[in-house]
Amino acid sequence: MGSIRKIAVFTSGGDAPGMNAAVRAVVRTAIFNDLQVAGIYRGFEGLIEGDIEPLSARSVNHILQRGGTILKSARSKDFKTKAGRAKAFEKLKSNGIDALVGIGGDGTFAGAHVFNKEFDFPFIGIPGTIDNDLVGTDFTIGFDTALNTVIDAVDKIRDTAASHNRLFFVEVMGRDAGFIAAHAGVASGALAVLIPERNMSIADLVERLSEARRHNKTSSIVIVAEGGKSGNATEIATKVNELAPYYETKVTILGHIQRGGSPSCFDRNLASRLGVASVEKLIQGERDCMVGMINQKVVSTPFAEAISDKLTIDPELLRIADILSI
Amino acid sequence: MGSIRKIAVFTSGGDAPGMNAAVRAVVRTAIFNDLQVAGIYRGFEGLIEGDIEPLSARSVNHILQRGGTILKSARSKDFKTKAGRAKAFEKLKSNGIDALVGIGGDGTFAGAHVFNKEFDFPFIGIPGTIDNDLVGTDFTIGFDTALNTVIDAVDKIRDTAASHNRLFFVEVMGRDAGFIAAHAGVASGALAVLIPERNMSIADLVERLSEARRHNKTSSIVIVAEGGKSGNATEIATKVNELAPYYETKVTILGHIQRGGSPSCFDRNLASRLGVASVEKLIQGERDCMVGMINQKVVSTPFAEAISDKLTIDPELLRIADILSI
Amino acid sequence: MGSIRKIAVFTSGGDAPGMNAAVRAVVRTAIFNDLQVAGIYRGFEGLIEGDIEPLSARSVNHILQRGGTILKSARSKDFKTKAGRAKAFEKLKSNGIDALVGIGGDGTFAGAHVFNKEFDFPFIGIPGTIDNDLVGTDFTIGFDTALNTVIDAVDKIRDTAASHNRLFFVEVMGRDAGFIAAHAGVASGALAVLIPERNMSIADLVERLSEARRHNKTSSIVIVAEGGKSGNATEIATKVNELAPYYETKVTILGHIQRGGSPSCFDRNLASRLGVASVEKLIQGERDCMVGMINQKVVSTPFAEAISDKLTIDPELLRIADILSI
Amino acid sequence: MGSIRKIAVFTSGGDAPGMNAAVRAVVRTAIFNDLQVAGIYRGFEGLIEGDIEPLSARSVNHILQRGGTILKSARSKDFKTKAGRAKAFEKLKSNGIDALVGIGGDGTFAGAHVFNKEFDFPFIGIPGTIDNDLVGTDFTIGFDTALNTVIDAVDKIRDTAASHNRLFFVEVMGRDAGFIAAHAGVASGALAVLIPERNMSIADLVERLSEARRHNKTSSIVIVAEGGKSGNATEIATKVNELAPYYETKVTILGHIQRGGSPSCFDRNLASRLGVASVEKLIQGERDCMVGMINQKVVSTPFAEAISDKLTIDPELLRIADILSI
Repeated sequence: MGSIRKIAVFTSGGDAPGMNAAVRAVVRTAIFNDLQVAGIYRGFEGLIEGDIEPLSARSVNHILQRGGTILKSARSKDFKTKAGRAKAFEKLKSNGIDALVGIGGDGTFAGAHVFNKEFDFPFIGIPGTIDNDLVGTDFTIGFDTALNTVIDAVDKIRDTAASHNRLFFVEVMGRDAGFIAAHAGVASGALAVLIPERNMSIADLVERLSEARRHNKTSSIVIVAEGGKSGNATEIATKVNELAPYYETKVTILGHIQRGGSPSCFDRNLASRLGVASVEKLIQGERDCMVGMINQKVVSTPFAEAISDKLTIDPELLRIADILSI
Repeated sequence: MGSIRKIAVFTSGGDAPGMNAAVRAVVRTAIFNDLQVAGIYRGFEGLIEGDIEPLSARSVNHILQRGGTILKSARSKDFKTKAGRAKAFEKLKSNGIDALVGIGGDGTFAGAHVFNKEFDFPFIGIPGTIDNDLVGTDFTIGFDTALNTVIDAVDKIRDTAASHNRLFFVEVMGRDAGFIAAHAGVASGALAVLIPERNMSIADLVERLSEARRHNKTSSIVIVAEGGKSGNATEIATKVNELAPYYETKVTILGHIQRGGSPSCFDRNLASRLGVASVEKLIQGERDCMVGMINQKVVSTPFAEAISDKLTIDPELLRIADILSI
Repeated sequence: MGSIRKIAVFTSGGDAPGMNAAVRAVVRTAIFNDLQVAGIYRGFEGLIEGDIEPLSARSVNHILQRGGTILKSARSKDFKTKAGRAKAFEKLKSNGIDALVGIGGDGTFAGAHVFNKEFDFPFIGIPGTIDNDLVGTDFTIGFDTALNTVIDAVDKIRDTAASHNRLFFVEVMGRDAGFIAAHAGVASGALAVLIPERNMSIADLVERLSEARRHNKTSSIVIVAEGGKSGNATEIATKVNELAPYYETKVTILGHIQRGGSPSCFDRNLASRLGVASVEKLIQGERDCMVGMINQKVVSTPFAEAISDKLTIDPELLRIADILSI
Repeated sequence: MGSIRKIAVFTSGGDAPGMNAAVRAVVRTAIFNDLQVAGIYRGFEGLIEGDIEPLSARSVNHILQRGGTILKSARSKDFKTKAGRAKAFEKLKSNGIDALVGIGGDGTFAGAHVFNKEFDFPFIGIPGTIDNDLVGTDFTIGFDTALNTVIDAVDKIRDTAASHNRLFFVEVMGRDAGFIAAHAGVASGALAVLIPERNMSIADLVERLSEARRHNKTSSIVIVAEGGKSGNATEIATKVNELAPYYETKVTILGHIQRGGSPSCFDRNLASRLGVASVEKLIQGERDCMVGMINQKVVSTPFAEAISDKLTIDPELLRIADILSI
């Protein structure tokens, strides 16, 4: 694969803090290795439309610390069709692009995998999503920043919860995964954490609240993952109130603030490492895989594997959450 | 009124960042003037129940920078009855308390005013509410901090809005006043601000969105005050989507994070000044009034006046919001 | 002055958070009023060199929340010479620029005033400096943000001071003015504030420290303005240690973090208002003056006056600092 | 060791964000396991003086998010003497304490190891230091938070560096280790990182600066570890200026702000896990060791080993720092 002369980079799916740091690392590593580099705007959608521009080492000045993605992101219906992917391939050829780096989540990698099978095109993925729901890496880019945003918000909510002896239900993102909820729950001292991966009935929750009351806890926070089986935070709060009317309950849905903000040091370094690795591995001939960090080493995982499995939450985390909420 | 020997301080109504800074200032100014000082927990409710404890200069160490209120807050139904207020008066007498400082909003001051009329008790109020909806002061304690919390959240939302070319509706607090929305709207570069004080029809809003589109704005934020006439943020987003289906709209309700957090420098200094002034004015014989800062000077406003008027939003602010959103 | 068709804007002197918000407001207000607008890079230096570019409403997208200045800043030796100013005037003419808005401090306005006298050129200044040392406005752009940065840093230092029962000397900026030190001192609960405007001898300071010790204060912060008469923070700490060896003293010089960061809501709104006003006043025929906010109204002050006087620190602030540090 | 009925916990050495989260975890895990628990104030010093108080699950409410340490910290000369340690042992006996958890760094563990040899007392350590210079754990408590504090400060400095085309030298903590400098250097896009573990001559540094200049970098940040061999940041800046006078150089020493602040999510969770593990391992009979997290699993490392080795910085990190600074 010594024949790679020009790499293109894009971001896709939900945006995550640190995507810009990854873009910067891809661009500068390509240039460091005497490759040309281009940016594709709005993911697969922009690729199909040919929304592509050359990037230089200076194009990515001062983006390391910025939230969002300078390359913008979009979900593409066209790329799900064979015709769309054929157009994408044509645009790559006509722009002289020999290899692709895509920063995104499982949807992005599923698309990339199909594309690779059809066109045998050098393509490496970098895991960028706040949800942390990918195998092949211990952490995805954006997860750590989202966690810090969540606990900062819960700290603020605790101020007012403690001032009024209230019960707060705080809904966090994560799609059908409970990583944000579980990690932020421990870190914010939540009384309980409701996640898709573990069932906790409303009755169990009410029992735990009653116990907290007996232990003189004056305020309580319950973290609810958006994809949980017991309903969203508002529904759960209503059900709890019926069984435990002595609480003044409030609901906060943190929403899209979790996707933004300047990336944490952890996310900037993760993104920098994976950005460097993606280009170096393309040069070395790897393709159709995602780069990740496992036990602090860079590893590659075939797309086929990365998109078929689900990462599971460490049961230790849930166990200590229970101990520490007494 | 040289006869004041013991002052009590309490917080009441919705909590606001900076309330602790005001409590600290009241306590230390009292001690500086050789008065005793006590804290009443949970506002009027705790007063009626006699939930009162002595405070020292060291009791208020390290609270200046904390959100919430160490004295906790509550709304009291009992204090709205003559019997409840009579009990409150008794508790003050039995605890040897000669004067009261209450930190809160218009509900607190309305209660205080009735109490003063009935019992002729030295009572001064300090405006502590994030809503900024009181006459007699340019700014209430907590307003500036809430604004910084809001714009920090909107900055994060803008990251993701700009990454996806989306339209976001962000609902902020303020009860029936639009101060938070108007000030945060200008400071966060919102395309439009919907506030109770000014009518903007859905058609006008859609027209403005279309204009922004023509001007190549790639993302847009609309700030919605919770008490607005066009409905809450979710309702407005739905209506806009019907008329302008080409937008991908998202809604975020910021909720109680706006009440928490470490107070800003502005709020700490405002709280410190008003806390000092409240005690000094009690010593000088003032009562039945609220202290506030107007044009950077401390002024007193009779409770009767403070609770009857409504502060109006500076029309200049709305005018420049319109200019700057082009 | 209905003849103004093209305005140029620049930033000059030390940068301050909110300068970008002011630039944005100038640009959009000019366009709103059907004027052309250009940006001059690196202040007077860039003006002399002709480093000038046209700006559009979109050029200033997403800069409202950014620290620093997109127009960069510099100090110019050439502009202090008659020849330099003549070159500057030429560049204005050759670029078709009819009026100037300069964002900076007293040095900038002194230069502008000389230029106005020589060339009778429409020129309005906007006060942008973290030092707050200008008459003609209650607050300068950047001051509020710098204060929040300082108290956030001091809050962190207090964590460690309180953990070790230490005495910390924290040096803050402000050139020969003590505004940052005085405001941040009250807001961070400093034991003492050393500012150029008020003399406090080392002996007095040691006496105050001893008193704090008697009152069982376990940690203490002393805020030192960089321009104070008793020396810088390191020198003062050494002298105090000689007289009071029982303290473990530490010194922190906050330095340039005080100039950066995303501007606060207060600074964004102040910058927005003054940016709008500067253009509107140019259109109305004003010149050779600085716009400022006094008692929440926009006012103009002739440059000659703005640069000759010194704003004084409100003695009330120093008085309450003393009361609250007991 | 089923005979453990009462555990005491203390913090020692330099304080670090997350120490309170660890204290909370120790206390609640002890109570969860029906043990009694006490807090020793001011580390070994307080132990020798008998400054010990019982703690309950409620004693540690609302400390999870606080910087510093509620148990305070100190360095003890007495504990370095046999007589001092004998007194410490006596105090443990007279207070009915059967086991110790100490949160600190290598100095703390060295003392603990000697104490264990002399008195065969169940004693487990938790790594709490911002320096990250311990073997037996991938990360120490406080390191991640300190990194986020550093990059937030450097982001602010970059605002002003970029506005003035300046060269900034930023000195960070780490004693004789370069972990903070190396990690923060990558994450803040530093042009160069000077650490004790790797030699970079002033000439090399100047060469790199010249190259950056040729590549049109308009501002540059150099991160300097405090324990580096080329001198401190001020000395290095002076030497660079002599060789490269065309730069306007500035120096910032970040100082003790790096030790404070609310802990990050990462540090809170690390502290929570290690706090739980320390108590569970004591119950299981372990002693004379430090608990740490390696590859996301809790492991124990004998004190003897933890204090004899030095963790080394991942050379990959330094390699990518060089690539990304082009």
